[in-house]
Amino acid sequence: MKQRQTGIFIGRFQPFHLGHLETVKFALERVKHLYIVVGSSQKSHEFKNPFTAGERILMIRNTLNAERVDPSRYLIIPVPDATGHAVWTAFIDQVVPKYEVVFSSDRLTLQLYKEKGVPTIEPPLLDRPKFSATEVRKRIIEGGKWKALVPLSVVRIIDPIIAKGRFDGLE
Amino acid sequence: MKQRQTGIFIGRFQPFHLGHLETVKFALERVKHLYIVVGSSQKSHEFKNPFTAGERILMIRNTLNAERVDPSRYLIIPVPDATGHAVWTAFIDQVVPKYEVVFSSDRLTLQLYKEKGVPTIEPPLLDRPKFSATEVRKRIIEGGKWKALVPLSVVRIIDPIIAKGRFDGLE
Amino acid sequence: MKQRQTGIFIGRFQPFHLGHLETVKFALERVKHLYIVVGSSQKSHEFKNPFTAGERILMIRNTLNAERVDPSRYLIIPVPDATGHAVWTAFIDQVVPKYEVVFSSDRLTLQLYKEKGVPTIEPPLLDRPKFSATEVRKRIIEGGKWKALVPLSVVRIIDPIIAKGRFDGLE
Amino acid sequence: MKQRQTGIFIGRFQPFHLGHLETVKFALERVKHLYIVVGSSQKSHEFKNPFTAGERILMIRNTLNAERVDPSRYLIIPVPDATGHAVWTAFIDQVVPKYEVVFSSDRLTLQLYKEKGVPTIEPPLLDRPKFSATEVRKRIIEGGKWKALVPLSVVRIIDPIIAKGRFDGLE
Amino acid sequence: MKQRQTGIFIGRFQPFHLGHLETVKFALERVKHLYIVVGSSQKSHEFKNPFTAGERILMIRNTLNAERVDPSRYLIIPVPDATGHAVWTAFIDQVVPKYEVVFSSDRLTLQLYKEKGVPTIEPPLLDRPKFSATEVRKRIIEGGKWKALVPLSVVRIIDPIIAKGRFDGLE
Amino acid sequence: MKQRQTGIFIGRFQPFHLGHLETVKFALERVKHLYIVVGSSQKSHEFKNPFTAGERILMIRNTLNAERVDPSRYLIIPVPDATGHAVWTAFIDQVVPKYEVVFSSDRLTLQLYKEKGVPTIEPPLLDRPKFSATEVRKRIIEGGKWKALVPLSVVRIIDPIIAKGRFDGLE
Repeated sequence: MKQRQTGIFIGRFQPFHLGHLETVKFALERVKHLYIVVGSSQKSHEFKNPFTAGERILMIRNTLNAERVDPSRYLIIPVPDATGHAVWTAFIDQVVPKYEVVFSSDRLTLQLYKEKGVPTIEPPLLDRPKFSATEVRKRIIEGGKWKALVPLSVVRIIDPIIAKGRFDGLE
Repeated sequence: MKQRQTGIFIGRFQPFHLGHLETVKFALERVKHLYIVVGSSQKSHEFKNPFTAGERILMIRNTLNAERVDPSRYLIIPVPDATGHAVWTAFIDQVVPKYEVVFSSDRLTLQLYKEKGVPTIEPPLLDRPKFSATEVRKRIIEGGKWKALVPLSVVRIIDPIIAKGRFDGLE
Repeated sequence: MKQRQTGIFIGRFQPFHLGHLETVKFALERVKHLYIVVGSSQKSHEFKNPFTAGERILMIRNTLNAERVDPSRYLIIPVPDATGHAVWTAFIDQVVPKYEVVFSSDRLTLQLYKEKGVPTIEPPLLDRPKFSATEVRKRIIEGGKWKALVPLSVVRIIDPIIAKGRFDGLE
Repeated sequence: MKQRQTGIFIGRFQPFHLGHLETVKFALERVKHLYIVVGSSQKSHEFKNPFTAGERILMIRNTLNAERVDPSRYLIIPVPDATGHAVWTAFIDQVVPKYEVVFSSDRLTLQLYKEKGVPTIEPPLLDRPKFSATEVRKRIIEGGKWKALVPLSVVRIIDPIIAKGRFDGLE
Repeated sequence: MKQRQTGIFIGRFQPFHLGHLETVKFALERVKHLYIVVGSSQKSHEFKNPFTAGERILMIRNTLNAERVDPSRYLIIPVPDATGHAVWTAFIDQVVPKYEVVFSSDRLTLQLYKEKGVPTIEPPLLDRPKFSATEVRKRIIEGGKWKALVPLSVVRIIDPIIAKGRFDGLE
Repeated sequence: MKQRQTGIFIGRFQPFHLGHLETVKFALERVKHLYIVVGSSQKSHEFKNPFTAGERILMIRNTLNAERVDPSRYLIIPVPDATGHAVWTAFIDQVVPKYEVVFSSDRLTLQLYKEKGVPTIEPPLLDRPKFSATEVRKRIIEGGKWKALVPLSVVRIIDPIIAKGRFDGLE
C-alpha cells in the first residue's frame, strides 16, 4: 500500500483500552496525520455507553500524552450518531477534515465506507476477548479485574466515575 | 484572578482570523489547558457560515502549528447548535472535558454562562472593525483585500475553496 | 355557541401580559376546563423569545393565583415547535388532553385548526398596540415604561431577569 | 432536612398508579410547591409506553382533584426524552421553573442529579412488586386484575382506551 | 364497501416481496389511485432494515413496471419515522396527498388510524410464514432459498447488494 | 454530452409552474429516467413555502398526466431539509435511487454537487422574472394574475387552498 497522508480511526471508546492504543500506534505508522473520531458522542450513562464524549476525549488525550505520541500528528473529534446509517459517513465528513483511509474494527463502519469506495484497513486486534470495551465494562460492573485492560491514564479517569456511582444500576 | 487550570474558548471561526489567534494566545497565558469549541459545527455553505467544521478545525490546527503553539496544551472540539439556547451549555458539557473559565466575545454565550455562575472572560479585541469574521466574509464576497486579516495557514485553506465557487451566490 | 366542556388557549407568552390575562378570563367564561399551551417552549434568550418556558409557566401560574382563578379549571402545558407547521397540531394533541375549541390570536394557529375542521375563537383584543408582547419587549429593550402592560406577578419575575443582564445584547 | 420550598417529581406514569399517588402526597408534605414531570412525553402506543402524555396528564389531574389535593400547590409538566442522558436535566430545566430537590425512584434520574450536585430523595415505595407501572401494564395485557393498583380516576381513563384496542398487539 | 377514490398502502418493504405485490393488486381493485408509503425511510444497513429507501423504491417501481401495473394509478412516497407514534399519521399526511382508506398489515398502523377514525383494510395475506419480509431476510442471512419469495425485479436489485457485503455482519 | 440513463431534478415547487414543466421536459429529452425531488418537504403554511409536500406532489403528478408525460419514466420523491447543507446530498441519496446527473436552477444545490464531483445541468430558464415561484406567490398574495404562470392542473389545486384562507396572513 502506498503511504497515505491522512487517515481516520473510528470507534466509540467506551472506554479507550490497550487495544485502541495499539491501533492508534498502528495507524500512525501508516499515515502522517490521524483523526480519531469519538462516535456516538451524544451517548453516556447507559450500559453500552457509560462515559460522556468529554470523558472519552480526555482518556485518549491523557493516554497519548503519557505515551509521548506527538500531539501535532492527531486530532480527536467527537461525532454524534446520524439520523440513519446511510448518511453517517456524511455526518463524519461534515466535521472531520479530508482523509484518505479509514481504520476501524466495526463491521458496519467498514461496510459503509466500502460501499462509498473509500479504502479501509481493519487493524490486527490484540488478544480480542480480553482487549475489548465490552469486556472492560463487564468487569467493571461485576467488580472484576479491569485495570489491566486499559492504560493507566484511563484508570485515573474511570476510578472517580465509579466512585460517584455511575455504574450502579446502569441499563 | 487566580491561575485556573482549564479554560474553554468558544467561537464559530467563520473563518479563524488574526483576532482569534490573539485570543488563543491570551487564553493560554491564563490557563494551562484550553478547549477550543468550534460552534455551529453543522453549518456551512451559507453566507454567515461558509466553511464546514472540518475546514475550520484545519484552519485552527494549521495556524497553531505554524505559530508553534504547544499542541499538548489545547484540543479543538466541534459542537453543533443546540435545540434551544437554554440547553446549549449542556450540549457543550456533553462533549467537552471539565473546564473552569470561559473565553468568548459573543454576548449570548457570555450571558448564558453568567446565568449558570461560570466565570467568563471577554478577551480584549484587536482593532475590531477589521479583525472580525464578518469583515473577512464581506471582503471575500466583494473581492476586497481579506488576506491580511487571517493567518497565512488560513489563506491556504480558503483560496482553493473560493476557486471552487463556494462563495458564488451564497445566501 | 353551545357551551363546550374543554378549550385550549395557545400562545407564546413572551411575556404573559394583561391582554393574555383577559383572554384566559374570556375563555373560562366559555369552557369548563382550559389548557393553556405555552408554545415555542424550547426557545429563550433571543429577542423575540427572551424567557424560558419555565419562566413563562411561572408567570401564568403566579398571575392566575393572584387573580384567584380556580386552579382546578386550567392546566399549563409547554409544547415545543414542530418540525413543520402541518404537523404542529399533532404535536399539541400528543401532550394535551382532548379539547373541543381553540382560542388564539395567532393567524397561523387559527388557519391550521380551520383546515382541520376544529372550531376556533379569536378573542377580542384589549387595546392592541399597547397590550402586545412585542410592545412589552420593545419597551424593556428601550428602557421604556413596560410595567403597566403586565400583571404585577409578571413584573416580579421579569425584574430580576433584566437585572441579571438577559436583555443586554439580545439578537 | 430543612424545609425546601420547591420540589420536582419525575416519572413516566405509564400509567399513574397508587404508588405514584403516595409519592405525590409524600413530596407535598416536604415541599410547598411540586412540579410533576411527565417524562418521555413523546412516547405512546408501545408496550412500555402505552399512553400519550395528554392521557397521563389527565390521569394525574383527575386523581389529584378526586383526592382533594390543593391544585395551587402543584403543576404537571410534560418533558420529552433528551438527545442524550447527559443533557436530560438541562431539558427539564428549560421547561420547569426553579426547584431545590428531586423526588424519583428511577436510578438513572437519581444518578444524573447526584452528578450535578442537586439534592435527591428516593421516596419509600409501596409494596413494590404490586404498585409498579410494569405490573399494571402486564396485568392489562394478560387480562389480569389491574384496577386495584390504580386510582379510580385512572381506571376511568384506561377502560375506554383498552376498549378501543390500544393494547391489542402492542410491541 | 363503496368504491373509494384514493387509498394508501403503508409498509417498510424490507424487501418488497410477492405478498406485497398481491396487496398492491388487491388495493388497486378497490381504489382508483394508490399511494404506496415506504415507511422508516431513514433506516438501512441494519438487520431489520437492510435496504435504503432508494433501493426499496426501485424494487417497487421495477416490479410494478414488469407486472404492467398502470404507473398513472400509483405513487411511491418515502416517509421517515416520526418522533413519536402518536404523531406518525400527521407525518404521513404532511407528504402524502389526501386519501380515504388505509391498507396495512401492521397492527400499530391499523390501531393509530382506527383511533383517528380513518377506514382501514387489512389485506388477506398470502401464505404468511413464507411471504413475509422477516422470512426473506432470515433466508438471505442464512444462505437459504429466498429468491422464490420475491419478484424477479427484486432479485436483480438484491443480488448485487449481497455481493457487495451488505449482509455480512449486520446487527 | 453522452446520453445518461438517470437524472434528478431538484426543486421546492412552491408552486410547480410552467418553467418547472419545461425543465421536466428538457430533462426527459436528456435522460431515460428522472427523479423529481420535492425539497423542503417538511415545510408548508409559510410565505416562502405555502404548500405541503402532498399538495406539491399532486401538482406535479396531475400536470404531467395532463401533459401525457409517460409516468413510467419519472418518480416524484419528497426530501426534507437536512440538518446542515454539507450533508444534504447524502439525505437525497438515502431516499432516491442512483442517478448520474443533476438538473437544478438553485445555486446552492449546484455548488454542493459540484464539490462532490457530480455532473450538473442548469436548464435554460423561461422568461425568468415571470416564470418563478416567487413571482407566483407574490401575485397570489397581492391578488394579481397568477393563473397564466402555472399549468391548469395546478390552478385546480391552488384555487380551493386560497379559498380556505391559507394565504391570509402568511408570514
